[in-house]
Amino acid sequence: MQVLTPPSSHSSPCNNKNLQSRSYLLSTATMKFLPISFLILALASAIALAYDPSPLQDICVATNDLESGVFVNGKFCKDPKQATADDFLFMGLRKPGNTSNPLGSQVTQAFVDQFPGLNTLGISMARIDFAPGGLNPPHTHPRGTELLVVVEGTLLVGFVTSNQLNNTLFTKVLYKGDVFVFPIGLIHFQLNIGNTYALAFSSLSSQNPGVITIANSVFGAKPPISAEVLTKAFQVDKKVVDYLEAQFWYDNN
Amino acid sequence: MQVLTPPSSHSSPCNNKNLQSRSYLLSTATMKFLPISFLILALASAIALAYDPSPLQDICVATNDLESGVFVNGKFCKDPKQATADDFLFMGLRKPGNTSNPLGSQVTQAFVDQFPGLNTLGISMARIDFAPGGLNPPHTHPRGTELLVVVEGTLLVGFVTSNQLNNTLFTKVLYKGDVFVFPIGLIHFQLNIGNTYALAFSSLSSQNPGVITIANSVFGAKPPISAEVLTKAFQVDKKVVDYLEAQFWYDNN
Amino acid sequence: MQVLTPPSSHSSPCNNKNLQSRSYLLSTATMKFLPISFLILALASAIALAYDPSPLQDICVATNDLESGVFVNGKFCKDPKQATADDFLFMGLRKPGNTSNPLGSQVTQAFVDQFPGLNTLGISMARIDFAPGGLNPPHTHPRGTELLVVVEGTLLVGFVTSNQLNNTLFTKVLYKGDVFVFPIGLIHFQLNIGNTYALAFSSLSSQNPGVITIANSVFGAKPPISAEVLTKAFQVDKKVVDYLEAQFWYDNN
Amino acid sequence: MQVLTPPSSHSSPCNNKNLQSRSYLLSTATMKFLPISFLILALASAIALAYDPSPLQDICVATNDLESGVFVNGKFCKDPKQATADDFLFMGLRKPGNTSNPLGSQVTQAFVDQFPGLNTLGISMARIDFAPGGLNPPHTHPRGTELLVVVEGTLLVGFVTSNQLNNTLFTKVLYKGDVFVFPIGLIHFQLNIGNTYALAFSSLSSQNPGVITIANSVFGAKPPISAEVLTKAFQVDKKVVDYLEAQFWYDNN
Amino acid sequence: MQVLTPPSSHSSPCNNKNLQSRSYLLSTATMKFLPISFLILALASAIALAYDPSPLQDICVATNDLESGVFVNGKFCKDPKQATADDFLFMGLRKPGNTSNPLGSQVTQAFVDQFPGLNTLGISMARIDFAPGGLNPPHTHPRGTELLVVVEGTLLVGFVTSNQLNNTLFTKVLYKGDVFVFPIGLIHFQLNIGNTYALAFSSLSSQNPGVITIANSVFGAKPPISAEVLTKAFQVDKKVVDYLEAQFWYDNN
Amino acid sequence: MQVLTPPSSHSSPCNNKNLQSRSYLLSTATMKFLPISFLILALASAIALAYDPSPLQDICVATNDLESGVFVNGKFCKDPKQATADDFLFMGLRKPGNTSNPLGSQVTQAFVDQFPGLNTLGISMARIDFAPGGLNPPHTHPRGTELLVVVEGTLLVGFVTSNQLNNTLFTKVLYKGDVFVFPIGLIHFQLNIGNTYALAFSSLSSQNPGVITIANSVFGAKPPISAEVLTKAFQVDKKVVDYLEAQFWYDNN
Repeated sequence: MQVLTPPSSHSSPCNNKNLQSRSYLLSTATMKFLPISFLILALASAIALAYDPSPLQDICVATNDLESGVFVNGKFCKDPKQATADDFLFMGLRKPGNTSNPLGSQVTQAFVDQFPGLNTLGISMARIDFAPGGLNPPHTHPRGTELLVVVEGTLLVGFVTSNQLNNTLFTKVLYKGDVFVFPIGLIHFQLNIGNTYALAFSSLSSQNPGVITIANSVFGAKPPISAEVLTKAFQVDKKVVDYLEAQFWYDNN
Repeated sequence: MQVLTPPSSHSSPCNNKNLQSRSYLLSTATMKFLPISFLILALASAIALAYDPSPLQDICVATNDLESGVFVNGKFCKDPKQATADDFLFMGLRKPGNTSNPLGSQVTQAFVDQFPGLNTLGISMARIDFAPGGLNPPHTHPRGTELLVVVEGTLLVGFVTSNQLNNTLFTKVLYKGDVFVFPIGLIHFQLNIGNTYALAFSSLSSQNPGVITIANSVFGAKPPISAEVLTKAFQVDKKVVDYLEAQFWYDNN
Repeated sequence: MQVLTPPSSHSSPCNNKNLQSRSYLLSTATMKFLPISFLILALASAIALAYDPSPLQDICVATNDLESGVFVNGKFCKDPKQATADDFLFMGLRKPGNTSNPLGSQVTQAFVDQFPGLNTLGISMARIDFAPGGLNPPHTHPRGTELLVVVEGTLLVGFVTSNQLNNTLFTKVLYKGDVFVFPIGLIHFQLNIGNTYALAFSSLSSQNPGVITIANSVFGAKPPISAEVLTKAFQVDKKVVDYLEAQFWYDNN
Repeated sequence: MQVLTPPSSHSSPCNNKNLQSRSYLLSTATMKFLPISFLILALASAIALAYDPSPLQDICVATNDLESGVFVNGKFCKDPKQATADDFLFMGLRKPGNTSNPLGSQVTQAFVDQFPGLNTLGISMARIDFAPGGLNPPHTHPRGTELLVVVEGTLLVGFVTSNQLNNTLFTKVLYKGDVFVFPIGLIHFQLNIGNTYALAFSSLSSQNPGVITIANSVFGAKPPISAEVLTKAFQVDKKVVDYLEAQFWYDNN
Repeated sequence: MQVLTPPSSHSSPCNNKNLQSRSYLLSTATMKFLPISFLILALASAIALAYDPSPLQDICVATNDLESGVFVNGKFCKDPKQATADDFLFMGLRKPGNTSNPLGSQVTQAFVDQFPGLNTLGISMARIDFAPGGLNPPHTHPRGTELLVVVEGTLLVGFVTSNQLNNTLFTKVLYKGDVFVFPIGLIHFQLNIGNTYALAFSSLSSQNPGVITIANSVFGAKPPISAEVLTKAFQVDKKVVDYLEAQFWYDNN
Repeated sequence: MQVLTPPSSHSSPCNNKNLQSRSYLLSTATMKFLPISFLILALASAIALAYDPSPLQDICVATNDLESGVFVNGKFCKDPKQATADDFLFMGLRKPGNTSNPLGSQVTQAFVDQFPGLNTLGISMARIDFAPGGLNPPHTHPRGTELLVVVEGTLLVGFVTSNQLNNTLFTKVLYKGDVFVFPIGLIHFQLNIGNTYALAFSSLSSQNPGVITIANSVFGAKPPISAEVLTKAFQVDKKVVDYLEAQFWYDNN
């Protein structure tokens, strides 16, 4: 379950009937089915950072002009002679994201899919808006490190090291102007612990860092992960797994 | 919670009083405290694969000879003139791992920490032993892709794509001789669905790919992740979170 | 000539008698020597982005603990077991930079030298403060792409392609919330064209992207580049070169 | 001369009349022409490991759908929405390779050409079957390190360092469960010194590491390398070179 | 302004009426307009060196066979089975470049655009011919380090470090057989200080390192950089900027 | 067997009693033992090219100042403030190599071991001098592509593709000014087919590309590769192998 509004989409998650495959909003059916206290959505963090291959020319603006359903690692580019300054500008982060959703936060991405000028350049960005108490839930970026700066408000942030370093949590409270780094691939989160709206910008070390919201990936996979796997892995009985999956799996479908 | 036996350790997890920081075996205290039905341990998958910097010489065998507590990206190396053939051989995967633990599986790593000859070479390996029903629970490798080959038995394996591809589960049953690939950073698992012992070898694209067992990292972080974060993220009330954390956090400490 | 205030330094460039080698502030001697109309300083852009080698462990916080004057590519690290959450937090971007200087702008860096937690993670950041009319003058980053987001004000920005693409200028006016990307190694600039203070954050694709302010590097090199080179290259007579060098070279020394 | 059976080919090398360009099996003509004592084929080791560019998306399964004879670095991919779990599974290593050939060994590759799901993921695998006395002859992988695990039998393995380290041979006898690493680009070999069949799996650090069997490349190049080059390089007279070339060159054509 | 003769072009820059977009020769109109003492052209250094993505196959010769105006990072390749030895040979550096131009030097490139066989191989070359007093003016390579060897004559060469190292000039006089390295992205130049013709070969660490001639990029950008930016950046009044731009901008158009 | 004169060494290979471990000159004992017609030495090609990790600072000049026998991937560096212009200049290629040896050629390296300023910069160079008929024998570079330019004379050059492309020889005759590229890891050679002295410069895509002279590595490994391996691999009887090993192994020891 995930609230991820594409840059120009401002529809309310609660009455949007046209769910796009990348938005994963809570359907009204789900909302009826679940007590309101469980309507907590996992916000997809738009923040990741990767180690992309280096560029082999000044510019290589992404295009989708190859009609035949063929892809490459990254994106095809348009003729550099056809590129304009508009290709290197992205206006999709101007407006605050809609935080009227159970998680109380919204990530708006400026990855290569939204911002074609980033192609081959190894970096991307996201803005994260938080209502008071808003959460960007535990997630990883499979292809990137994230560097976050707080522009407004107060955030509790943290990441957890891998097993080798004993799953240690590194956590801090961030104030306006503070910068925090989340190393590539590690699970991390951000929570607005202030009484006011909060805003952060994150830069990521890949044109397409990817986001894996842990709850969605584990309990909302489509089709679901085998119950035997989940009950053993989380040491709970099948009812708890069923319950958790119901939150995420129904919503995503 | 994690059962990760270092290659040369064969002590039973149930009576080992000397827990090393990287082994995380179940203490007897924990075992008394918890009903047996919850004694399901998350096995640390030893499998990861990364995109390491290229080597700048033929060989650079890892050493810990710099006493002053100083480190580098990767490892210091010993004088190449002092290297011997033994440095490039690892015998720690000869013996089956001990699967007498709640998860019924054991990962034995041949990463650079165990096998110094891998330093700068961008690859590593693990053997995974499974009792019938044994599970290598959902985990990611922050710095590597994993390529697994089944040597004995029958495994159900799967990985889940990131949010961008809608958390799609790709899952297959593998038989002896089958090879399956888990892309870098994605959540994946392996379950022995046969009636017999199973064995797999995984190769990973980094000398130190890292392992993040999801359950341990989320519910067993040290110190624990704030309850507010977890209740919102998983859409459950605090009792469920407390319960889950109890399984993983107590055991790890 | 360059105004580059280290994060915690807030002295006025006009009366600072203790010039550090990396600050290059205008000396009072220079200020007397030059008419005020030429007291335009080249601000060191703190913005660059590079393609760093991948990390080989979760964390590798930079340290200077190896006393013997020996260095590596990047930085030595401290023992990961000694790392704390403070290592991953940087508070040096909280305060606005001092723009009371001829260029009317100030870049404050969060590169690995200021923010040791970035080591091996391939990303860095800078805040850029602009008085009305303030300029971050033409510069390049030898090891990084820059991705800039405007937080306050209105900026005219641009980059120039290399000779192969005919030195084409790509330029746009950016408003609050706009994002613009400057490809690795290309000459670029930012100018505050609004009537008010402006603020931008830039993320860069290297832990140490480097900054080359064109005017400083060409006319303020220490020792100066041969006059024969500069007169030929810029097609001007020696008096013009002497004049230009006087602005930059004297000030830097 | 090389025995390299594509995964689904199980024809005997001694009566296969339809030689594919990548199989290089011994033709019957060759077999009549040569005394049996010289019918020793150089097995192409399927093992290499490289440092591939990083992926820029979760998955990018190789496809050959671009009909116009145009290629890229690596492979074109199919639409990720069309990918299925079968794309990430390779069953071609299930069956033992046919070792009824003069070298007594068979390498079966799971490189990107055979296993399209590996595309962009930087890793590959091979199984190597050895009859008693079977040899995987000296070869290099131009784009990869190799990490080998012995599953059955006893192997003598070795690699030779480059000139800078004095062409030093590092050699060991490996038993079941042992792992050995062959650094990128160095000449290496494996010989079954046991009395029984042997089996090893090798993982390689590239999706397409390449194999250069030394004897085939030097004495079996098509067209042949100039005799003047070979006589000088190996310090032998032309008769010896002619003899050696006859073994490899005739067989390959 | 830049004199960059494509390998097979030997027309005089002073009477060439057919200016190609990549040649930027001095038009006769420009020559009449300007006093001869200012006819000093900035030679585009053909020298750059980059950190390209690794190859994923033996050979991938660049081709332009995809007609639809679609590009990739780097180049499309032709079928490797169609490659011939001619693809790996470049004869365009045989003849001296024409130095009868105001800068007295000529760079002839063997980059991937001229030499398709370099595609995916991460290296390129240029020859630089110098009349007595000839200058390869200050420039950078955004994607490469340059390694220069002097074959004839005596050169004064230098590079300037970035702001962090205080814009320090490292300069030497090179004689026949000397080798000098210019680190990636730093501003550098070469001047023939001997009384005779000079010749150097430079190798560069990218298939397409790029060249940014500082004077052309700053004062000859198309369209021109805002006068406000240039007057502030170089601390000169608008007349000087107009004058400088006139040299470079008119010539380039 | 290999003639590799370090840049400043000009001793005759035939009477040098102080053999250094990296020079491998023919000892006088060897010369007596062998008929003169076999005294053909394999010249170590100094040419290789690799894909090194990117630099993380402007300069990082190699140093050996860490006395404790500890190494890193690449080299330790000296304090950049202690670097001088001399660090970036290499004069060791000024003089022709001594070609009075059986192979009639000499490679003089400017790799990071000889030229410390190359450290972290990903490129290196070599000069190759050829007497008439001189040969740079078949070799590979495990960590680099090679780009060669002919400065004097006429060379026959070639490389052989890997098994996948059927061990195809690509060969050309090069004249003065011609450039040829040898892809990373492939076996290649150069032969002076003119009647006069020939000279070439090669650039390589790594600071330390490595050289593997095939004959030395296969027949001159120390200790020797098992006769069983070599007889099977080259399809010859043990006498031929003994003979070949005698040439290379005795000489190297």
